Amino acid sequence: MMASGNTTSDETAIRELAENWARAVRTKNINGVLATHSPDILMFDVPPPLECKGIEACKKTWERFFSWAQDSGVFDITEMHVTAGDDVAFFAALMRCAGTEADGGRTQLEFRLTVGLARSEVSRQSCMNTIRSLPAERGT
Amino acid sequence: MMASGNTTSDETAIRELAENWARAVRTKNINGVLATHSPDILMFDVPPPLECKGIEACKKTWERFFSWAQDSGVFDITEMHVTAGDDVAFFAALMRCAGTEADGGRTQLEFRLTVGLARSEVSRQSCMNTIRSLPAERGT
Repeated sequence: MMASGNTTSDETAIRELAENWARAVRTKNINGVLATHSPDILMFDVPPPLECKGIEACKKTWERFFSWAQDSGVFDITEMHVTAGDDVAFFAALMRCAGTEADGGRTQLEFRLTVGLARSEVSRQSCMNTIRSLPAERGT
Repeated sequence: MMASGNTTSDETAIRELAENWARAVRTKNINGVLATHSPDILMFDVPPPLECKGIEACKKTWERFFSWAQDSGVFDITEMHVTAGDDVAFFAALMRCAGTEADGGRTQLEFRLTVGLARSEVSRQSCMNTIRSLPAERGT
């Protein structure tokens, strides 16, 4: 079930889920951001710590992100690759965000996002198990 | 199909695939490293560029990694979370590697790995679509 030129309805739904999530981030709608996250989400965020476990820890990362992003309104998916199975899927994306540093300087950041998804057994809606990846820098 | 306390045979197979892959990296066995990768693998590596597309581009990143790792023999999975569906799966892991910088100093690096997998339609073996993530650093 590798991604191919054919777009399935599941792939379309996943793209909508991702775009709705990115829009919620742009508009600082925290309930929208978390809406499709699993309660036991595991997230690898850009800033430390190395991992966040659970929806409450995940929520805190967004408070920090919103504080940095201020009113930039930039949180855009620029490229996206979806692999959708019957009950589990993942996508990888290139993204762009922007924010303001402590010294007042504006930063625009290109970064990678990888998200694993599993269909919820309760609602049959998609649950997100987000892995946010980092911009390419040598990790030394 | 969220990860639970039950370990399925698919989850066991995925853990073995990941450990075999890490072992191949430790022993600089490039064929073993690439064995379960899809020809059209998309990889987000730690160093630039932002993304690598295709098995040949992926292979080049390993030449660079092996040059850095030298004889450290350190490329270990320290924590792993698997979500396995019928035909698609993903896992997220914390890992550790070590290498030598240009100035001769040794570096040990904790990093995150996220991998999406799809069952191959030809062999029904697992194909890896690797996303290697970065250590937690503020991306500024």
